[in-house]
Amino acid sequence: MDVLKDEQCAPDFHLCPKFEKTFSILGKKWNGLIIETLLNEGPLRFKNLSKAVNHCSDRVLVERLKELEAEGIIIRNTFPDSSLIQYELTTKGAELAPIMNSVHTWADKWFA
Amino acid sequence: MDVLKDEQCAPDFHLCPKFEKTFSILGKKWNGLIIETLLNEGPLRFKNLSKAVNHCSDRVLVERLKELEAEGIIIRNTFPDSSLIQYELTTKGAELAPIMNSVHTWADKWFA
Repeated sequence: MDVLKDEQCAPDFHLCPKFEKTFSILGKKWNGLIIETLLNEGPLRFKNLSKAVNHCSDRVLVERLKELEAEGIIIRNTFPDSSLIQYELTTKGAELAPIMNSVHTWADKWFA
Repeated sequence: MDVLKDEQCAPDFHLCPKFEKTFSILGKKWNGLIIETLLNEGPLRFKNLSKAVNHCSDRVLVERLKELEAEGIIIRNTFPDSSLIQYELTTKGAELAPIMNSVHTWADKWFA
């Protein structure tokens, strides 16, 4: 029986470090939802982002936004003569859309 | 200035629960890498899966495999008259491939 052969990973098989890195970002609790919200809604103030990602505490949301900014996925915009601060996806962040779309396709099929 | 308008999320905006559920699975540390390994390598014994996902402790790997089995993403195959146990993706699990592919496309571009 073929299934009983002692299968082996290819000796040089290893997971792509870039893939691991991407999942370490997307996989962190709330990050996927923050990105999805900014993709759907465009630039948002903290308070509106916080409403949308509504089970995430403000403390944790602040932390995640800083991390995503450090990764170049979002940008924190300030404006002269205004106290407005808006969070927005960079090009790098906006190009996560196909990943989000493929997640939706799968989720719609399998969690009907 | 348009950017200074007080943007609002649509009043009924909320994140799709299926999307949240999918990310709660894929986002959990190691799960993406376990799935990617089984997509690339086909059914594997625990020891070979453990080698591939090589920074994950065996204790945690056992836990993740149980969770992925409970989600219907992998199946644990046993065989009569054999001590062989193999882990394999279900159809539901195999259909995660487009998500994995879109992650690779993005990662290759942005972590060059």
